[in-house]
Amino acid sequence: MHLKVKHIGMSSGGPLIAIINKEDAIKLDVHALDRIKIEKGSKEAIVAVDIAKTKTVKPGYISLFDEVLQIFSVKKNELVKITVEQNPLSLYYIKKKLDGETLDKHEIDEIVKDIVSNELTEIEITSFVCGCYINGLTLYESAYLTEAIVANGKQLDLDAYPICDKHSVGGVAGNRTTPLVISIVASAGFTIPKTSTRSITSVSGTADTLEVFAPVTHTKKEIEQIVKKTNACMVWGGALELASADDKLIKVERPLNLDPEGILLASILAKKAAVKATHVLIDIPVGRGTKFEDRKMAKRVERKFKQLGKLLGMNIKIILTNGSQPIGNGIGPALEARDILTILQSNGKLGPQDLKKKALMMAGILLQMVGVKNGYKRAIEILESGSAYKKFKDIIKAQGGNPNISIKDIKIGKFKHEVRAKNSGSVKYIDNKMITKVAKIAGSPEDKGAGIYLNVHLRDKVKKNDVLFTIYSENRKKLEYSVSLIKNISEIIRID
Amino acid sequence: MHLKVKHIGMSSGGPLIAIINKEDAIKLDVHALDRIKIEKGSKEAIVAVDIAKTKTVKPGYISLFDEVLQIFSVKKNELVKITVEQNPLSLYYIKKKLDGETLDKHEIDEIVKDIVSNELTEIEITSFVCGCYINGLTLYESAYLTEAIVANGKQLDLDAYPICDKHSVGGVAGNRTTPLVISIVASAGFTIPKTSTRSITSVSGTADTLEVFAPVTHTKKEIEQIVKKTNACMVWGGALELASADDKLIKVERPLNLDPEGILLASILAKKAAVKATHVLIDIPVGRGTKFEDRKMAKRVERKFKQLGKLLGMNIKIILTNGSQPIGNGIGPALEARDILTILQSNGKLGPQDLKKKALMMAGILLQMVGVKNGYKRAIEILESGSAYKKFKDIIKAQGGNPNISIKDIKIGKFKHEVRAKNSGSVKYIDNKMITKVAKIAGSPEDKGAGIYLNVHLRDKVKKNDVLFTIYSENRKKLEYSVSLIKNISEIIRID
Repeated sequence: MHLKVKHIGMSSGGPLIAIINKEDAIKLDVHALDRIKIEKGSKEAIVAVDIAKTKTVKPGYISLFDEVLQIFSVKKNELVKITVEQNPLSLYYIKKKLDGETLDKHEIDEIVKDIVSNELTEIEITSFVCGCYINGLTLYESAYLTEAIVANGKQLDLDAYPICDKHSVGGVAGNRTTPLVISIVASAGFTIPKTSTRSITSVSGTADTLEVFAPVTHTKKEIEQIVKKTNACMVWGGALELASADDKLIKVERPLNLDPEGILLASILAKKAAVKATHVLIDIPVGRGTKFEDRKMAKRVERKFKQLGKLLGMNIKIILTNGSQPIGNGIGPALEARDILTILQSNGKLGPQDLKKKALMMAGILLQMVGVKNGYKRAIEILESGSAYKKFKDIIKAQGGNPNISIKDIKIGKFKHEVRAKNSGSVKYIDNKMITKVAKIAGSPEDKGAGIYLNVHLRDKVKKNDVLFTIYSENRKKLEYSVSLIKNISEIIRID
Repeated sequence: MHLKVKHIGMSSGGPLIAIINKEDAIKLDVHALDRIKIEKGSKEAIVAVDIAKTKTVKPGYISLFDEVLQIFSVKKNELVKITVEQNPLSLYYIKKKLDGETLDKHEIDEIVKDIVSNELTEIEITSFVCGCYINGLTLYESAYLTEAIVANGKQLDLDAYPICDKHSVGGVAGNRTTPLVISIVASAGFTIPKTSTRSITSVSGTADTLEVFAPVTHTKKEIEQIVKKTNACMVWGGALELASADDKLIKVERPLNLDPEGILLASILAKKAAVKATHVLIDIPVGRGTKFEDRKMAKRVERKFKQLGKLLGMNIKIILTNGSQPIGNGIGPALEARDILTILQSNGKLGPQDLKKKALMMAGILLQMVGVKNGYKRAIEILESGSAYKKFKDIIKAQGGNPNISIKDIKIGKFKHEVRAKNSGSVKYIDNKMITKVAKIAGSPEDKGAGIYLNVHLRDKVKKNDVLFTIYSENRKKLEYSVSLIKNISEIIRID
């Protein structure tokens, strides 16, 4: 059958989809989401077909979403040849998972490949996620999934051993240990190529904060050069193209808050495998408002991480940390960057000491893991001697940033609002999620200068009218809106 | 936040969806598929939001699919107010099902209500189906689902007892017992208001075939009038609006061939409950190419149907019939209609005897169920006396058809192709699925005169060059295409 092309002029959000009229669907004997092949000359594309019930697509026409046109450019009104295609094999494997069977390496690889190349629809990806959620993944399946995500992205070519890496599971505002840990470990002579994400649900992703100091978007080749020069990098992970599978899984997981453990573990470890990490420290913050509200759950995940590490040839160490309150004072890219620079420039004397201590502890453990005796002591020496700051500047310079950036160079929002204590007492509770929300509404992380500066932590004594935190924004309207969210301050910070 | 309306000029295929730019999504703090409320004056709509990554939707704009515009008409470039809404409660209930919990009546009702009113996205409906598929539904859950589907559609108001009904699970070509069974049972004085579906995957749905005799699309009120006049009706079920939930479930079930038993049972029994049936006969064809390839599976479903019937206050009887070959000779609306009319007009003497026998058996059982002694004998009397034909004509007339329609009035496709035996022997196998496919490609059921006339059944002796079947089409091209499908006749009908 030949059909005339129409451009929808819209993205499907991922999947390769074409729309045809019901009459043509009957002639082809295809149903919604069956696969068809579109051919024009030597070009071809296999897409899922959706069927227009209304007159949006007339008989004789085929409407193509942007994603299809990107891989198969064809002009409006050009005739293309349509034939029916078999459904992708990955659908059978997804069905197997729903039926409670265990998938082998090849089957998982097919599924990930088809997700990445947009060959599966959201209905099909959702079915896979539900199958993994209900029936679970074996350790081997999680390992295969990790390998498949890596195989369908890119890996850094680094000629080094050991290669260190760190990861925080997230959910804690201000938890910006990365620049400190990376600077210390790299300064000790170990390779630590860190890729970070931009914010998804948090106030600021590590990549958003690092961008205050230097560009974080680099090609694979550039990253390899930066690491060769400095032992380290602090870049956005996008260049390794692992996010493709991740993003698509996250989209279908979100509405129901499904986060199948096996997929979560694979997604994290794939990022480590992509930099060929051999020694990995994973920080799991535990407590109200974090991903792991109870310690038992976190312990179970710890075990799985370790077992999975073995299968993948990675030495993994887990620390369960206190995630019941924000770390540091600044929350938001510029405010966090100021905290970090203050610690580094003062050789650890100034700046938020909770953040400094956590970073030193993590760097110390990583150093022990790769054979340094008294790792924690060594980490302190490196910070206090100024070596960490020197290494930090080297990395910033290698990434194209200004190594001599000063605190004053880091601009924070010119509109601000102070939130004060309604009564005296001791800080009993800080609502991570609300702090995050207020900072986001104020403009973080898109507006680098937006966010919150937090003056108190748990168990601090405060007096009535003390400033608890200050909201910063680059835009008066956003500030007003974020302030309006704080109807009852005692629900965000409770003081008894 | 206020945004300017754009019309996408396309259907989403069901769900209420709006698209906004990433910048506005950040300001609203919403993610893909979160819910927003759109307001304009006193009108409002709650929709799922999708987020444009490309420049398709510019900041400050909101693009609406046809479905949203249907319930919330608003002109291009009009400003609407946008606020963030809570996700529907049904999402929590779907999550419960995924977590292996049992849902109560209220929870299932919420899910069905939200599916019907387009408030759930395909990702969310898929999650529900996967949860039902893997974790199963209890009998009570299936009963609640049945009731919810009925409650979210319409019920016939009939002042009668008992009310009979029948159903064939499908998968067998030509299995058109309905007009015969309905005419016989109604002629015996019992109420039997039959609603049928149009073809989904088959060559012809019962409604498609009945349409050869009379209009089948009637309002609820009209259907009630027809039943009052004749004890019966043979109409398309669309007027009762049960299909809405069904269609949406089927769309997400299809790609992976998921057909959760609990949903299948509920979907069938909801159609019976909507006509307030008290005595229901269900025909489950068993055999290669049908829904139930093995007898064990069919037996299990039989048990469930009966138990579910008890909960719903329906007396249900199941027959497992031989589904290994087509029933009757005609396959396709006009060809089936000719078979039926031939049997009725000849008082059972002419026409396909296998179809006649099956219909008599079914009518007999239904009569027994409502207290008629020797039901089968009574059914034969009614057919042979001409009472069944008379009742058939009454129903056709009440539905607005021509009761005096003759065989010759029923036009069949003028293009035909005979398929002949390559060798002599006995018919060992007939491929239901291929027969269906060839008839569909020839134009059935959209072209009423298209289809297949089958000359042989299993175990028939044939000689080389005997005509095995004839393909009819209203269109030369369609005929050619359907003929080209038959590369190897022995794969469709095997003669040894």
